Amino acid sequence: MNADSESQEFVIASNASSARQARRDGGSLEARLLRRLLSRLGDPPIEFLLAWTGERVAPLTSEPLGHVRLLDRGTLLGLLRDPQVRFGDAYSAGRVEVTGDLIEFMHIVYRAFGHANVGKSLVNRVARWAHAHRNTLAGSRDNIHRHYDLGNEFYALWLGETMAYTCAYYPSAAATLEQAQIAKMDHVCRKLQIRAADSVVEAGCGWGSLALHIARRYGAKVRAFNISQEQIEYARRKVREQQLEDRVEFIADDYRNITGRYDVFVSVGMLEHVGRENYEGLGRVVRRALGPRGRGLIHSIGRNYPAPLQPWIERRIFPGAYAPSLGEMMRIFEPCGLSVLDVENLRLHYALTLRHWLERYENAVDRVRGMFDDSFVRMWRLYLAGSVAAFETGTLQLFQVLFTTAENNAIPMSREFMYPQNSPAGTLEDA
Amino acid sequence: MNADSESQEFVIASNASSARQARRDGGSLEARLLRRLLSRLGDPPIEFLLAWTGERVAPLTSEPLGHVRLLDRGTLLGLLRDPQVRFGDAYSAGRVEVTGDLIEFMHIVYRAFGHANVGKSLVNRVARWAHAHRNTLAGSRDNIHRHYDLGNEFYALWLGETMAYTCAYYPSAAATLEQAQIAKMDHVCRKLQIRAADSVVEAGCGWGSLALHIARRYGAKVRAFNISQEQIEYARRKVREQQLEDRVEFIADDYRNITGRYDVFVSVGMLEHVGRENYEGLGRVVRRALGPRGRGLIHSIGRNYPAPLQPWIERRIFPGAYAPSLGEMMRIFEPCGLSVLDVENLRLHYALTLRHWLERYENAVDRVRGMFDDSFVRMWRLYLAGSVAAFETGTLQLFQVLFTTAENNAIPMSREFMYPQNSPAGTLEDA
Repeated sequence: MNADSESQEFVIASNASSARQARRDGGSLEARLLRRLLSRLGDPPIEFLLAWTGERVAPLTSEPLGHVRLLDRGTLLGLLRDPQVRFGDAYSAGRVEVTGDLIEFMHIVYRAFGHANVGKSLVNRVARWAHAHRNTLAGSRDNIHRHYDLGNEFYALWLGETMAYTCAYYPSAAATLEQAQIAKMDHVCRKLQIRAADSVVEAGCGWGSLALHIARRYGAKVRAFNISQEQIEYARRKVREQQLEDRVEFIADDYRNITGRYDVFVSVGMLEHVGRENYEGLGRVVRRALGPRGRGLIHSIGRNYPAPLQPWIERRIFPGAYAPSLGEMMRIFEPCGLSVLDVENLRLHYALTLRHWLERYENAVDRVRGMFDDSFVRMWRLYLAGSVAAFETGTLQLFQVLFTTAENNAIPMSREFMYPQNSPAGTLEDA
Repeated sequence: MNADSESQEFVIASNASSARQARRDGGSLEARLLRRLLSRLGDPPIEFLLAWTGERVAPLTSEPLGHVRLLDRGTLLGLLRDPQVRFGDAYSAGRVEVTGDLIEFMHIVYRAFGHANVGKSLVNRVARWAHAHRNTLAGSRDNIHRHYDLGNEFYALWLGETMAYTCAYYPSAAATLEQAQIAKMDHVCRKLQIRAADSVVEAGCGWGSLALHIARRYGAKVRAFNISQEQIEYARRKVREQQLEDRVEFIADDYRNITGRYDVFVSVGMLEHVGRENYEGLGRVVRRALGPRGRGLIHSIGRNYPAPLQPWIERRIFPGAYAPSLGEMMRIFEPCGLSVLDVENLRLHYALTLRHWLERYENAVDRVRGMFDDSFVRMWRLYLAGSVAAFETGTLQLFQVLFTTAENNAIPMSREFMYPQNSPAGTLEDA
């Protein structure tokens, strides 16, 4: 991926020793304040150029690996107050420029901060903030609307033909985005052993690609729930185009209102929007929806340990979102008689997926600029590049959890069936 | 498996209607007290014959599926006081007889009670009791000694050649116990991608079969820790016999005293004896033992939700033991920068393993009687048959958790490598 072209202007000081000299000096008040902030943040290996004074603020304990230019004093003051949110805002506004590859830079940021011990005060601060984005029925509708209803045309520019906006599954690193998204759907369907006789309920179906795939390729009946109006309309058009109305129903409603009994529950990329306080409730919805031999799969971004999302992401990109640790996810299953059969961590697949999205996004950036503005263009670039780095540094995980009702013994002994060369799932022909 | 022969005497009433009549009547005081206990326990489908009065106490709301004969009043009074512990004690003492297949009977018991909501009072009672079996360094030595130092000769009667006393892995239901134990070791080694250049540390190595297998088949160096004196002596004899002294070292010490850095941490069937209060400590031991690209696997009996072990098992068979839920297991990994890559639930494999153990146990029962006494014979039978039922009813689970350090990106993209037909691990020849 190519870095933001406007940030190329920032030329790294050719004379490294003079920069090192400068960072020992006092310098202006703002330079000293920035240095104090950086020390408090563990002296990350990043050098800052203050454009309005010409000063460089460099790390004290290492050579700089990343280079940032701050364009004005106000931006610096914002960073001093709330670096986690203001950095992204200033980047979007074009008041912060990053030199070189943005993913590489975000790697440095996540390596420096991603595994930092998140103090209680931060957790509480975020918890208070998250309160404003609570996932009540109405709150979820609003949160989902703010991200997913940006326009199907926009998402179509970079999600590819499947319009699947979740981690793909790469059978090989050379697979295309489309191949990997189809492979992900098949991976999920194989894990669930979906057959034509099955009834499937999907919670949070996006633009409908998985529901359509299940019906088309596996012959099963699907009821798919979603509260994004734009996505549901798109999915309903697709179901008519593909003449799958007898097998797929798209329902514009919240997962909490799922009714009926099904053989299979599947949810890919919704849990991030459910909210921790609703995990037990989600478990009850799942338990109620499944018969005694029911099985299910929940696919979600996760963490190695409980921690809030990066605050800028939670505020500007995914209001109300949370990526749970595996231990937190267990609150869905443990209280209500569900048994976990299998967990797979696919974080490197998400990094690849995001690299593909970012590449297509950059290729279509002029069209994005036409739909929104420069600030949006940069915001979305930072979000995608930062997400690549978050998965590549292990700051974020991707968990697929396969489960069944506790008393179900009709479960396969081994997982060989999950892999195509051993699986009967490959026998059905793609329509 | 054949039921305990001495229980065959108990003949089920041929006239079912007369039994149903009797259960509505008042009967003796002890019969009424037993009925009250059974009602409180949810009226399980089990009929009790009180041998000293000739009365039958049958379920009120269903036909009886299981039949039990109580031989004397004292046994009944014990059951009324503490059914969970006293049933097993009375069975061991020969004062309770079960008609028909013991595994089938234990299925009924676990179906009736296994998923019951464990009230706080019970949890607290068990917590208090467990305190007496605390897993301090000395407490663990005592707890382990009580189970694992019963005599290698005894275990050799029914564990088979590998002396592996943990869940095997059945490539097919027709596999022998030995084949399945070897397959389990290879399954673990493949998950960990063990190569000849690796250094491995094993926590809780039993009689040493996995450590020896890793060295012999994969060529890696292993340091294996165990606090069972009898097991360590056995393992040391084996390492000399197999001339693997240059690659395997058996250390008679607690996992908490592991020192050094390794590529791989592995622990199969020890976590049950670690104690919940020590999970974070175990995580720190693991983290300290692993280099930046280290990987590990912990294999343990588990539960679908947090609950104490069946109290008779915890008291008479496995003092100080606890089977964690997956959420509880995460306390090992989440606080200390470990990332879970994969979880597999193998509970049906443990049921098969236990069926094989029980079959061999019954075939060698005369020799067991010669080593111990009738009471021990029955106790061990109930433990093995009850464990089959616990895994088959989903009361117990078996989790294999594969993990790595959070920052390790040298992880495989997919899990296909875990399955023999795709794996390079099969290329090394077995010595």
